[in-house]
Amino acid sequence: MAAVTYERVLAPLGAALPDLEALYLDLHRHPELAFAETRTAAELARRLTGDGFEVHTGVGRTGVVGVLRNGEGPTVLLRADIDALPVEEKTGLPYASTARGADAEGRDVPVMHACGHDMHATWLSGAASLLSAARDSWSGTLLAVFQPGEEGGDGAAGMVQDGVFDLAGKPDFVFGQHLVPGPAGWVLTRPGVIMAASDSLRVTLHGRGGHGSRPETTVDPAVLAASVVLKLQTIVSRETAATEPAVVTVGSMHVGTTGNVIADDAVLEVNTRAFDNAVLLRVRAAIERIVHGEAVTAGAPKPPEIELAGSYPVTANDEAVTGELTEVFRAHFGPETTMPAPLVTGSEDFSEFGRAAGAPSVFWLVGGFDPVEVITAMTEGRFESDIPSNHSPRFAPVLHPTLRAGVETLVVAALSRMAHPGVE
Amino acid sequence: MAAVTYERVLAPLGAALPDLEALYLDLHRHPELAFAETRTAAELARRLTGDGFEVHTGVGRTGVVGVLRNGEGPTVLLRADIDALPVEEKTGLPYASTARGADAEGRDVPVMHACGHDMHATWLSGAASLLSAARDSWSGTLLAVFQPGEEGGDGAAGMVQDGVFDLAGKPDFVFGQHLVPGPAGWVLTRPGVIMAASDSLRVTLHGRGGHGSRPETTVDPAVLAASVVLKLQTIVSRETAATEPAVVTVGSMHVGTTGNVIADDAVLEVNTRAFDNAVLLRVRAAIERIVHGEAVTAGAPKPPEIELAGSYPVTANDEAVTGELTEVFRAHFGPETTMPAPLVTGSEDFSEFGRAAGAPSVFWLVGGFDPVEVITAMTEGRFESDIPSNHSPRFAPVLHPTLRAGVETLVVAALSRMAHPGVE
Amino acid sequence: MAAVTYERVLAPLGAALPDLEALYLDLHRHPELAFAETRTAAELARRLTGDGFEVHTGVGRTGVVGVLRNGEGPTVLLRADIDALPVEEKTGLPYASTARGADAEGRDVPVMHACGHDMHATWLSGAASLLSAARDSWSGTLLAVFQPGEEGGDGAAGMVQDGVFDLAGKPDFVFGQHLVPGPAGWVLTRPGVIMAASDSLRVTLHGRGGHGSRPETTVDPAVLAASVVLKLQTIVSRETAATEPAVVTVGSMHVGTTGNVIADDAVLEVNTRAFDNAVLLRVRAAIERIVHGEAVTAGAPKPPEIELAGSYPVTANDEAVTGELTEVFRAHFGPETTMPAPLVTGSEDFSEFGRAAGAPSVFWLVGGFDPVEVITAMTEGRFESDIPSNHSPRFAPVLHPTLRAGVETLVVAALSRMAHPGVE
Amino acid sequence: MAAVTYERVLAPLGAALPDLEALYLDLHRHPELAFAETRTAAELARRLTGDGFEVHTGVGRTGVVGVLRNGEGPTVLLRADIDALPVEEKTGLPYASTARGADAEGRDVPVMHACGHDMHATWLSGAASLLSAARDSWSGTLLAVFQPGEEGGDGAAGMVQDGVFDLAGKPDFVFGQHLVPGPAGWVLTRPGVIMAASDSLRVTLHGRGGHGSRPETTVDPAVLAASVVLKLQTIVSRETAATEPAVVTVGSMHVGTTGNVIADDAVLEVNTRAFDNAVLLRVRAAIERIVHGEAVTAGAPKPPEIELAGSYPVTANDEAVTGELTEVFRAHFGPETTMPAPLVTGSEDFSEFGRAAGAPSVFWLVGGFDPVEVITAMTEGRFESDIPSNHSPRFAPVLHPTLRAGVETLVVAALSRMAHPGVE
Repeated sequence: MAAVTYERVLAPLGAALPDLEALYLDLHRHPELAFAETRTAAELARRLTGDGFEVHTGVGRTGVVGVLRNGEGPTVLLRADIDALPVEEKTGLPYASTARGADAEGRDVPVMHACGHDMHATWLSGAASLLSAARDSWSGTLLAVFQPGEEGGDGAAGMVQDGVFDLAGKPDFVFGQHLVPGPAGWVLTRPGVIMAASDSLRVTLHGRGGHGSRPETTVDPAVLAASVVLKLQTIVSRETAATEPAVVTVGSMHVGTTGNVIADDAVLEVNTRAFDNAVLLRVRAAIERIVHGEAVTAGAPKPPEIELAGSYPVTANDEAVTGELTEVFRAHFGPETTMPAPLVTGSEDFSEFGRAAGAPSVFWLVGGFDPVEVITAMTEGRFESDIPSNHSPRFAPVLHPTLRAGVETLVVAALSRMAHPGVE
Repeated sequence: MAAVTYERVLAPLGAALPDLEALYLDLHRHPELAFAETRTAAELARRLTGDGFEVHTGVGRTGVVGVLRNGEGPTVLLRADIDALPVEEKTGLPYASTARGADAEGRDVPVMHACGHDMHATWLSGAASLLSAARDSWSGTLLAVFQPGEEGGDGAAGMVQDGVFDLAGKPDFVFGQHLVPGPAGWVLTRPGVIMAASDSLRVTLHGRGGHGSRPETTVDPAVLAASVVLKLQTIVSRETAATEPAVVTVGSMHVGTTGNVIADDAVLEVNTRAFDNAVLLRVRAAIERIVHGEAVTAGAPKPPEIELAGSYPVTANDEAVTGELTEVFRAHFGPETTMPAPLVTGSEDFSEFGRAAGAPSVFWLVGGFDPVEVITAMTEGRFESDIPSNHSPRFAPVLHPTLRAGVETLVVAALSRMAHPGVE
Repeated sequence: MAAVTYERVLAPLGAALPDLEALYLDLHRHPELAFAETRTAAELARRLTGDGFEVHTGVGRTGVVGVLRNGEGPTVLLRADIDALPVEEKTGLPYASTARGADAEGRDVPVMHACGHDMHATWLSGAASLLSAARDSWSGTLLAVFQPGEEGGDGAAGMVQDGVFDLAGKPDFVFGQHLVPGPAGWVLTRPGVIMAASDSLRVTLHGRGGHGSRPETTVDPAVLAASVVLKLQTIVSRETAATEPAVVTVGSMHVGTTGNVIADDAVLEVNTRAFDNAVLLRVRAAIERIVHGEAVTAGAPKPPEIELAGSYPVTANDEAVTGELTEVFRAHFGPETTMPAPLVTGSEDFSEFGRAAGAPSVFWLVGGFDPVEVITAMTEGRFESDIPSNHSPRFAPVLHPTLRAGVETLVVAALSRMAHPGVE
Repeated sequence: MAAVTYERVLAPLGAALPDLEALYLDLHRHPELAFAETRTAAELARRLTGDGFEVHTGVGRTGVVGVLRNGEGPTVLLRADIDALPVEEKTGLPYASTARGADAEGRDVPVMHACGHDMHATWLSGAASLLSAARDSWSGTLLAVFQPGEEGGDGAAGMVQDGVFDLAGKPDFVFGQHLVPGPAGWVLTRPGVIMAASDSLRVTLHGRGGHGSRPETTVDPAVLAASVVLKLQTIVSRETAATEPAVVTVGSMHVGTTGNVIADDAVLEVNTRAFDNAVLLRVRAAIERIVHGEAVTAGAPKPPEIELAGSYPVTANDEAVTGELTEVFRAHFGPETTMPAPLVTGSEDFSEFGRAAGAPSVFWLVGGFDPVEVITAMTEGRFESDIPSNHSPRFAPVLHPTLRAGVETLVVAALSRMAHPGVE
């Protein structure tokens, strides 16, 4: 396909940027937790409708799907996730979130788009609009999928089970992208495995409560939890090979309500990562062994409970299609901003769409931080410490050229797969 | 003073028990956290007014004081504390609390009278009523002090600062009592130190948040908190002599909101005990050393904060008055239920009243659990594990003869100190 | 008995001091580990023989007993222990030990009289000499018992089993004393329990060895041992009441031989203390629970082994005889240097002699450090940190008046019990 | 070069195997620790002399170099390491080692060829013999280098400093190989980084000793060491990226001599690995931060000491020469036994020879375990748990075809680089 087509389709993007910026700021100021994205979904559905898409809402609870049937040709699914995180924003930005929401346990928590899904949604909304406006440039079916509940892990599966492929058939290609703290304007691709498999485990440790001054009448769940957290470190340090990447993180630990009362229980939320499903299962088994062993050691009155709250498979890109897309990106963006992606320890349920459809899928990364700042930090060895990563309360992408770049990737990728009856 | 007077004053108690039971159940069902005891205070004030006391409310925020001026003679202060705890009741009792309240940080938490202050308030209300009805049997001034905010530590000091002694002068004697999981009907006394000194410390550990899959970009506050909790155990195990009692409890530990986000901070609430103020200060210094050392070890981006949220001194009984009261109790209750109290690791701010007044004070314990169950558990070595202690979510005193015994102790103690002009 | 007798018997002590000092320095320079005290025993036997005692060597392996039958009257057993410790002396004294010996596992270790048994032996040797020289002042039988193997715990039992009481019958009174870092010249007594019960446990933790770079093929015994040590701290901090003294010490921990090989096993030597045999048993059970639980948590290939290498009961003094001896000491030494002893967490197998003989026993303490230094350190709160305790590599008693004081206590105590036919 | 030459040179190998087996068994039965390999060196020198080499002993303390000048052509250095480990053999083999030796601290320790250096030496001795016997088949200079002290890290540097390249000039190619628990007869190659960089650190933690029953007078080095060991786990689990391989192992930890004495100090030997020298330095800095922080937390009387006892750089193979050698091996051994090597977390000072000579070096791996057993264990997922790795006390290679394979690799590799004047 000729690059000239890309240019023509993308021509209105410059004029559209102020509106996309307004959408991004609005989403950023009003983040919503997984499966509570009703305000977000309504706005995205409104825009799809305005762009002439057939719009389906409530797909997989709070998901939105726009269908654009545009003649013969392949079906391309473009996916963006739309949920935010229970993180208290500390960016100091004028448009920082002060929103709160109810987490899975009903606790009132702060909410922030700390993972960039506000940008993902804005990108896809912008790309959908451009592709709709340029319907004469391509032929096929476009599925714009706004997925809820990516954080936690079963939003994609929920849309699949709820019949997302019944709306316009199974896609021939599935594409998605993620905002990362790389230089704004960079696109990073990787054939094969790109993102990790992951488990989310909820561990409830049972002690026996009592007065804080009489520990001998209790089994102290704070000490038990502390020991579990330290012992879980040994799964990565002692039980997995150095050449076998794995991560075990206890992101959340809650015990008791006041200093002078020993509580009955402790609750840990544990998240694991690996680039190989077998390793992930081994890590899960080690967690179970350690958690149960620690309870025995503590003399716990009953065994702990371990609930698998979610599980992501490895995100693996189709080698051939990734290779072709990389060439397309390189031609469009230039070789100096089209880079090989590193192996990313983050996880995604994006691959569920490709798996369920039996279609090749490709997931790529788009940088969104000030290039000078990022590259200086990299060369000075300060990248890890100074550039806030996804999920950080200080995650703060720059708007430009980030907004433009992520719209272009989706448009170019979709066009590269669609039919172009009038072109050849 | 003749025992016959006690009997005459206590004669109406049997008939009053159903009403006291109703009061107890009402307070138990409607527990209120420290300084939020407005409903409790209103009910107790209403009863004091009905019993002819001059009533002062809002003393030390939510405290209530009843003054009964009854001619020449000593002033006796009887004190009950009235606040409940952020504990979720698990007694399974038909009158179990389902109440919730806002803790010091504004979090919504369950609330329970897990320390027996509902019984303390009922006892004092009953004793005040009987002593008022028997005004012809004694002469002097009675102060019925319902103190708020005992849990946390500055309710008594607040009442003193707010002028509790301006209402009817400084007392000549200060008496108080506590419900304990001993046999119902038992009274336990101890001259000298009876309860521990205590600090409440709030420790904020600063890490650096980020994505759960990229711990290398973060300083993980969950691991830091876990290590602090384990290391704090060594203060008692290694830094205090075996013959020098001390307790360090981390009752509350809160980190993060979800498994796959590493949080910025962890907050621990630590409670300490000792029977010697110098030991308590040594423990406090050790906590500071450990908490700061652990932050350095973890590479924390900024030092931890340690806030002294409250501090209780040792509760020490006047030796002479305690000896005399013990004789009075023994004569009234019989030697088989008047016992020496053990050293109690719990803490109280009761002693603040005696200290501020420069008056001898005595604090004693009253058992409130099924005697057969308690004594069987003791003889079978199951007491610690099977009998729920104060602050346990399963703390469940029996109503009888507990209600009666704690009213009698207060009446008998007050009468033993008052003048009896017509008697001799 | 008249004080004049004590003075007469003790009169030659001044002239004997240079010889006793020489004995002390010789023993200090040549410390010998438990049951290897052959040089020590030979020298002590030589002196007893010279003083006219009937001498038995090899009693309970390396023990020495001197019998002095001196007519009708009670039999008084004076006991000193004679073994040294596997500690490397760091006192910097001109007579510091540079000796080495083989420990129970045959390892070559440094040896030091870090517990003062050299002083104990010198005291008893001096007292035996004076009492023998003054045979006309008393009547009865004197047993001078030099016991081996006090450190480790079964030296006393070994002498009893080997027939120490067959030599001259069972004693009527059993006396012993211990050098402590109190002011030189002070004598400290305590009726009832004075020293703790104690267990010595040897714990072998089984891991699975391998290359240091491939921990995933191993079960790392160093990590397992480390976790056991930290978790054992919670027995004292969480499982025993603050008012229930207990100590759990891991004095020795050995794992591996080099950094890049993960070993198969780890060996810990654990020592516990309590003032109540029931508490000691509870601590032992908690150690077993924790050690086994940790092995399960670590995925150990086989269960750990826990061997009870020794056990001391509580050292409890006869109340009546202690009271009488205290009066005798107070009269002899003056009230300003006869003090109540604190509860001592150290342990002794001394009580085995009294138990086996069915005779009242008394064990007291004698100070041996510079009084100005000790008392200044106490008043400035530096005692614990600045005055080296027993078992410290810097334990360095002053010779005077320590030597004299401990001879006098034994002589006075023995004489106070003996018959004095010519006196009354 | 024609394969026919290899066959001709290798023809006598079959007949030589019994003698090589005898050499192997002799070396295995008489292992010697680093720089104590005098018996080993004497035997290897004797054989080199017999094979017509110019022999240099004592090169780099206990190293042996054989020089064979055979006309014009390249100089090829073949290196084998010869030292054993302080490991107690538990193979149960009839020729198991029962040897003992003195470690770096002079402790008497068991010694075993647990890393296969006995096989390395035997292989090189066999290859030297064959190449010498076939001097007419090649032209150039052969250096047979038997290096001492590979375990610990400076044996190769010691030979270089001691002038190994003065004997016959700098080599043009440097080759070495390592026995691994793969199928016997397999050869594994890898271009670029093949083995890890490594540090050996000796950490001395200073506490303050005292009596085991009085921990409050001490700073307990066992608890300090335990906490350091657990905290070191977090370097890998929290401070290095999942995709950035690193290992931190505490192979040796020694504290105290008996249970009831708290020691002054603890000594840890720590070994680290990474595949990037920058990561290794980061790990070293983290160890320093943690060790110093823990000492502060413990209130240690003086700072810990950290001594860098040895350091290995990354072992990186020349890409071009490795590619060529791989082709030669594949042709000689067949593709089914010539495999790509994994990244190995073990470390080597082999690369020092190539670095110092400025010559390309290649290091490969040779399997030495029963193929059926190894492959069955791999397919059943039992490889890590069931096949003893290098440094395991149960490391037990099979003699055949292991002996033959490792001789053939050296002969073929050397011949592939030598000149062959008469051949073309």
